[in-house]
Amino acid sequence: MKPILVFQTDFTYKEGAVSAMYGVVKSVDRELEIMDATHEIPKYDTWSASYRLYQYMRFWPKGTVFVSVVDPGVGTGRKAAVAKTCDGYYVVSPDNGSLTHVKRKIGIAEIRQIDETVNRLKGKGTENVSVFHGRDLFAYCAARLASGIITFEEVGPAYSVDEIVEHPILDPDIKPNHVKGIFEINDPNFGNLWTNIPTAEFVKAGFNYGDYVYVTVRHDGEVKFSGKVLFEKSFGFAKKGDVIIYNNELMNIAMAVNQGSFCEIYGLSYGPAWEVEFEK
Amino acid sequence: MKPILVFQTDFTYKEGAVSAMYGVVKSVDRELEIMDATHEIPKYDTWSASYRLYQYMRFWPKGTVFVSVVDPGVGTGRKAAVAKTCDGYYVVSPDNGSLTHVKRKIGIAEIRQIDETVNRLKGKGTENVSVFHGRDLFAYCAARLASGIITFEEVGPAYSVDEIVEHPILDPDIKPNHVKGIFEINDPNFGNLWTNIPTAEFVKAGFNYGDYVYVTVRHDGEVKFSGKVLFEKSFGFAKKGDVIIYNNELMNIAMAVNQGSFCEIYGLSYGPAWEVEFEK
Amino acid sequence: MKPILVFQTDFTYKEGAVSAMYGVVKSVDRELEIMDATHEIPKYDTWSASYRLYQYMRFWPKGTVFVSVVDPGVGTGRKAAVAKTCDGYYVVSPDNGSLTHVKRKIGIAEIRQIDETVNRLKGKGTENVSVFHGRDLFAYCAARLASGIITFEEVGPAYSVDEIVEHPILDPDIKPNHVKGIFEINDPNFGNLWTNIPTAEFVKAGFNYGDYVYVTVRHDGEVKFSGKVLFEKSFGFAKKGDVIIYNNELMNIAMAVNQGSFCEIYGLSYGPAWEVEFEK
Repeated sequence: MKPILVFQTDFTYKEGAVSAMYGVVKSVDRELEIMDATHEIPKYDTWSASYRLYQYMRFWPKGTVFVSVVDPGVGTGRKAAVAKTCDGYYVVSPDNGSLTHVKRKIGIAEIRQIDETVNRLKGKGTENVSVFHGRDLFAYCAARLASGIITFEEVGPAYSVDEIVEHPILDPDIKPNHVKGIFEINDPNFGNLWTNIPTAEFVKAGFNYGDYVYVTVRHDGEVKFSGKVLFEKSFGFAKKGDVIIYNNELMNIAMAVNQGSFCEIYGLSYGPAWEVEFEK
Repeated sequence: MKPILVFQTDFTYKEGAVSAMYGVVKSVDRELEIMDATHEIPKYDTWSASYRLYQYMRFWPKGTVFVSVVDPGVGTGRKAAVAKTCDGYYVVSPDNGSLTHVKRKIGIAEIRQIDETVNRLKGKGTENVSVFHGRDLFAYCAARLASGIITFEEVGPAYSVDEIVEHPILDPDIKPNHVKGIFEINDPNFGNLWTNIPTAEFVKAGFNYGDYVYVTVRHDGEVKFSGKVLFEKSFGFAKKGDVIIYNNELMNIAMAVNQGSFCEIYGLSYGPAWEVEFEK
Repeated sequence: MKPILVFQTDFTYKEGAVSAMYGVVKSVDRELEIMDATHEIPKYDTWSASYRLYQYMRFWPKGTVFVSVVDPGVGTGRKAAVAKTCDGYYVVSPDNGSLTHVKRKIGIAEIRQIDETVNRLKGKGTENVSVFHGRDLFAYCAARLASGIITFEEVGPAYSVDEIVEHPILDPDIKPNHVKGIFEINDPNFGNLWTNIPTAEFVKAGFNYGDYVYVTVRHDGEVKFSGKVLFEKSFGFAKKGDVIIYNNELMNIAMAVNQGSFCEIYGLSYGPAWEVEFEK
């Protein structure tokens, strides 16, 4: 069977853009299977694009072709690329920070710039369109790759993995009974916040399930939340409405309100300015 | 062909959770077909989860495997289950009220608790995660069942259908020319409200298409809406902006505003506290 | 392979309606492939329904069956129809303005009214439902057509293409160095506005990439925006937050704010009352 194409964008499904893009794929090869990852990446947010790939890629079959289009620089100088990961996946994406986690957490074996003279949609009257590479370039090229019409080498010229545009990924500061990190992403639906602290290191630092841990959250140095919070395996160990520290789906430390939004209730968000400190 | 997997959750598509879950399915068996029912069940709302299954299950081919993950108690004591319905479907779900309508309106022939030692995802580093049974347990087990890797018996130990956790379903009070019920669910997009009154019984009680019916809506006893309202077959029989009583898609009595939101305009909602009374 | 079914509605995915509809398709023929175009057409907005079909249809393989259900008049006198386009697609839709662009911009070769006595769902207890033709009529009939169970002729009786209900499509006024048009649709996610002015004609009128163009936007004659605006190929040629005139994905002139919402920032919208004038 041909590889699956898994798409993520910041387009939403509010209008016809996703459908135009998927039509292009099906016109390249009717047999190709298309799956939505998400079309609700926050607009222009290449950090979230990068993080989401990291969140779900490993669960798909090897060979899967991921297409990520969060592309504020569409039609300008940024590279349109296809990366081959060290663990056997492909990622088709603008090289604009969206490949940060794939490179740093998974590893990129090789990257190629899409050759527009070969791998751009033709014959639909869109040759002079510069604003929709999702349709005219990324989807089209990804479909050709997944279909076997082109090899990875035929995507276009290789360039150095060192040149890939990256966002900084911050490391936590782990000391016995004292761990500092940041909230690096949220769960935008449930309002949970995920730190950059691996649960394994948190536990090694002396924190155990059942402990009440002293937490301080600061934004640009200003305290936004502080208190003794239960560290447990899942939300339901806290009372409804109570804050909890838990081991999230990627085995990192996260915080939530049981059946409530930690972000909204306490006015918190994520990014390098959002520091979180845990003390025993 | 293998059975289709139809998913509903309260995850939304805002981040990567659905994609992780679907990747697990495709990694179990590339051939399995996945369809979205909805990922926009109101958060933690097991009543809505239950109602939505009832709304759409019958229209799918026999043998379809439905996966419902509205799971505020994930990682705690609630059972993770697979139910076999009397009419030949499977429902994979936490046993937390989500199976109410399937049990009461369709009938459950047999129910089994998922054996985590056998039917839980392994090898992806998520063995110690307690917060994402949608991915690690429900999707994985459902995929194995649909793929034929396990039989229904191999899901895990059977338990009594009588033990299934249920929400109360209220019955309407039907008298000639006088019918009382509740709004039991809404259409969250169009703002319509659906009662628990079967249209057949409403008509038998003396109400006919074309009648103007006296309606009173009460919330905890307090009148929130009252007036003479046309009972007709569809929205367009009322003037734009007018209220209408109609026969909904499940052959129950419902109320709407033609091209408007009955819920929003009149500040109405649904649940056992929302009583509606029809008099001729 | 059988034709793909591509759906658009104003139902959203908030409840179970889409799933009921797709279940009907799969019950007609398990092999049929269903793709979402969008379920977020603005409620009752047959103009947007029409425009979205025009936006994406051409990118799908010939023979694709599009199903469009934006149907405020469901269950009343409006016709339920299947149109065969001049370029080899089918569109299943209420004949309520949703077919405007398909007729005017693509061309309809033949149109037939769905014969409810033959092509309406039976046996699911929904025979007396008048409010959900998406499920009971459009999806069911489209599935039968795509599956080959019925021919196009067996949809029902043909009627004249001249009778198709149309919205007016306004033409722009093109003079050298002076072009007037309307915003005819938006990009509801990014907040861009698309005019009815083909880029080719705009360029022929004397406007070139790199030009600063004097723009006036009026709503019912009242000026809502005016200023010198850069005309370029893509968003990134403007500074972040600046307005830009660009060639959109359908080769028409459009306006945006680079990484911002032109609609929201300036309080603009679309429709015949929204005039836009470009002067050199």
